Amino acid sequence: MTPDEFRRYGHQLIDRIADYRSNVASLPVMAQVEPGQLKAALPKAPPQQAEPFEALFADVDRLIMPGLSHWQHPSFFGYFPSNGTLASVLGDYLSTGLGVLGLSWQSSPALTELEETTTDWLRQMVGLSAQWSGVIQDTASTCTLLALICARERASGYSLVSGGMQALDKPLIIYVSRQAHSSVDKAALLAGFGKDNIRYVETDADFALLPAALEQAIQADLAAGLQPCAIVATTGTTTTTASDPLAAIGAIARTHGLWFHVDSAMAGSAMLLPECRWMWDGIEQADSLVLNAHKWLGVAFDCSLYYVRDQEHLIRVMSTNPSYLQSKVDSEVKNLRDWGIPLGRRFRALKLWCLIRAEGVEGLQQRLRRDLANAKWLEAQVCNAPDWQVLAAVNLQTVCLRHAPAGLAGEELDRHTLAWADALNQSGQAYVTPAILDGRWMVRISIGALPTEREHVAALWQHMQQAAAASLPPPLRA
Amino acid sequence: MTPDEFRRYGHQLIDRIADYRSNVASLPVMAQVEPGQLKAALPKAPPQQAEPFEALFADVDRLIMPGLSHWQHPSFFGYFPSNGTLASVLGDYLSTGLGVLGLSWQSSPALTELEETTTDWLRQMVGLSAQWSGVIQDTASTCTLLALICARERASGYSLVSGGMQALDKPLIIYVSRQAHSSVDKAALLAGFGKDNIRYVETDADFALLPAALEQAIQADLAAGLQPCAIVATTGTTTTTASDPLAAIGAIARTHGLWFHVDSAMAGSAMLLPECRWMWDGIEQADSLVLNAHKWLGVAFDCSLYYVRDQEHLIRVMSTNPSYLQSKVDSEVKNLRDWGIPLGRRFRALKLWCLIRAEGVEGLQQRLRRDLANAKWLEAQVCNAPDWQVLAAVNLQTVCLRHAPAGLAGEELDRHTLAWADALNQSGQAYVTPAILDGRWMVRISIGALPTEREHVAALWQHMQQAAAASLPPPLRA
Ligand SMILES: Cc1ncc(COP(=O)(O)O)c(C=O)c1O
Ligand SMILES: Cc1ncc(COP(=O)(O)O)c(C=O)c1O
Repeated sequence: MTPDEFRRYGHQLIDRIADYRSNVASLPVMAQVEPGQLKAALPKAPPQQAEPFEALFADVDRLIMPGLSHWQHPSFFGYFPSNGTLASVLGDYLSTGLGVLGLSWQSSPALTELEETTTDWLRQMVGLSAQWSGVIQDTASTCTLLALICARERASGYSLVSGGMQALDKPLIIYVSRQAHSSVDKAALLAGFGKDNIRYVETDADFALLPAALEQAIQADLAAGLQPCAIVATTGTTTTTASDPLAAIGAIARTHGLWFHVDSAMAGSAMLLPECRWMWDGIEQADSLVLNAHKWLGVAFDCSLYYVRDQEHLIRVMSTNPSYLQSKVDSEVKNLRDWGIPLGRRFRALKLWCLIRAEGVEGLQQRLRRDLANAKWLEAQVCNAPDWQVLAAVNLQTVCLRHAPAGLAGEELDRHTLAWADALNQSGQAYVTPAILDGRWMVRISIGALPTEREHVAALWQHMQQAAAASLPPPLRA
Repeated sequence: MTPDEFRRYGHQLIDRIADYRSNVASLPVMAQVEPGQLKAALPKAPPQQAEPFEALFADVDRLIMPGLSHWQHPSFFGYFPSNGTLASVLGDYLSTGLGVLGLSWQSSPALTELEETTTDWLRQMVGLSAQWSGVIQDTASTCTLLALICARERASGYSLVSGGMQALDKPLIIYVSRQAHSSVDKAALLAGFGKDNIRYVETDADFALLPAALEQAIQADLAAGLQPCAIVATTGTTTTTASDPLAAIGAIARTHGLWFHVDSAMAGSAMLLPECRWMWDGIEQADSLVLNAHKWLGVAFDCSLYYVRDQEHLIRVMSTNPSYLQSKVDSEVKNLRDWGIPLGRRFRALKLWCLIRAEGVEGLQQRLRRDLANAKWLEAQVCNAPDWQVLAAVNLQTVCLRHAPAGLAGEELDRHTLAWADALNQSGQAYVTPAILDGRWMVRISIGALPTEREHVAALWQHMQQAAAASLPPPLRA
């Protein structure tokens, strides 16, 4: 494709995306397709000859679009908001169009330095002290894996330069809350700790980790001759946005010399709001933390920020220095390949930069506050409706709820919950995520997609009530 | 930013990228900036108020552009080609603009199914059997980490579900060639094996791993009571594009029951050409392999393809299944979160799809052949020039060379090599990468940037000769 063809199709593409974002509300939120439908419609073998780009656009319309669930839809209340604000989309377009890589500072100096600057801007925006240094990773899953590897290496005196994890005298133990995200478990397993060496600590009535239970677990392991290694706390758990008490956990980590990692993948964005900072009370005692700028904040996926207090330790664990990557200025610059797993690195700072500048800190705060208010509004409706329950404190933008009319309990209630959530999703009117809380299914309403206004939340509430009523077993119908 | 503003600035952005790609040849290839220059020019704190996008564009021109080394420049001969073909750029623009995520099949079915289809197309294009299944990862570094974790888990009978690497009786051992990429070492260290348990196997005169030395190393470890675990071979090493003999290595892997991973990050693209397939003779014996579609092939970074023969094993090692990610169709579909580390997943298949369709297999083959011919042409010039040496077989698009006039040897020769390479890079006329081979510095010329034609290689050859002559110590100057 020549630059002139790119110009032609690029203009068309911009119009298509602008139209999509303008009209997405008219589409069913959840894809209405069967497993295998797209695969069956696509050629089994690649084309030998070049095809005109018009053919691609036509197939996008005909085949791809019907197979999408629309995350940028005002009635998307699933999983978590993954906001690709249009300013950050443009930042990503710049990055991909320029096509430069940050293998080392020298390989495109602006890439490294804009990443240093923008991660420092975000540090200030969320109220972290200047002790923290940030770097952009793909996802929170990767950040937590890095954190646990760093913990492992600190606890083992850099076993990686000798016998590795295989040569340790005592097993290293990881502590997480029962409400931690599945990525924490996965990180511990991939880092080689083993399931037997992960302790799932009990939570309180608000689903927050119990410091006393943590201390007890550590004591038990010490008594058994094991070596406590790291604690992962969560600010804003996935199921209920519960917040673990960081100050108390940090004190325990310090007492025992453990690595303290904080997963603020979802709720980190809320730290832009002073009224939410209580959730991070004690954060300065942590060793590492992750905050997904690609969730509620609005940077187009992927843009996960990993902050550490001891950058030298991270570099010591991650660095490689083959001759073909060395340059004369290495001692004066950051080489971000030594801050994570991948060697190649896109210019992801551009999309963070575009978001912050095009919206401004105040613009971002305003949007986050809109979503918090919408969640409170929904909470109030649900609380006041007969047969409906709100199941967890609404700390942020997520409301956990259940329709539990008298006469329905246990597995029958589970079936009802899954039935109405599924009917709602299938209707295309909204996308919600069922999840298990205290052993029973409930429905998470995660508010905060970019175009979601009060009217959409109000419509959701109507649709939920209708879906729940229609899904009741016949004897219970009004 | 509203869709209409996006339309306005998006059109401007498309024109900017089209202009950039048209005019990039007129820019110095390597950034001509000092460490810290951009950081000093940027505000220390984030803006409180929104700024107009014009201000961002102005800063891109004024601050960012001078800080780029241009990977899409026809005189970029550094590291490796990282071709962001414009068709694939448009594919990436679609992905970012649509802003959908593939946490699970249900969360956007087309994302998963297009990834299945396009990775299968590429499988056919490189001549792999239907036994292989592919998935898109960010980088080869990550793929090789996955491979070694999978190897660890197979060798240890899934230790991750019990005591992990910490509970193994005998240390697991990894075998790599001395010429392997630094990412292999890094993967082994991050996966917990430890430096003591990595064996660096000797290579032959062509820098290819010696099977006899490999067998010997395995025997020695067995005799010492250790447990051989995995071999990583490379097709197209970074320094010289040497190719390890896969058939012989595969036979050894089979005999000892070891995991066999092949790093074809760079050279995998060449497997589109039947005349290069000798490099992959024996590939069907491997367990896993990586091929970077984001290098020479031309998919905009990041798009690294990881292929495995036993997908069930990969899923068993990687899968997590929390309630909030379950759906009714899970048994009928692929959930690609179970194929790698991250949970979140962009719609990266779109850029691979756009590349293959817009260029066609034959178009891609033609471009790769152009680059191979250019490398052969440069090899011939260098071989015929007095005082110049080609240091390794030109298997692909990389020429390793040295200017070694009589009277220069040892460290003096190293200084001369680094001096002329640096002078050439600083001049902005070309970007080349010095590297160490057999203990001495040389210069790698990696041909294959998208716009690089014979004339640019010819100009490079002129510039190299001038730079080398001008950098000679005075007594040696003509
Ligand atoms: C608390 C928490 N941690 C981690 C993750 C994983 O995020 P990612 O997809 O960036 O790995 C999520 C969301 O998916 C989350 O809510
Ligand atoms: C042979 C080889 N393996 C691995 C890599 C690492 O690639 P990535 O940046 O995708 O991790 C490279 C290139 O940088 C390479 O040439």
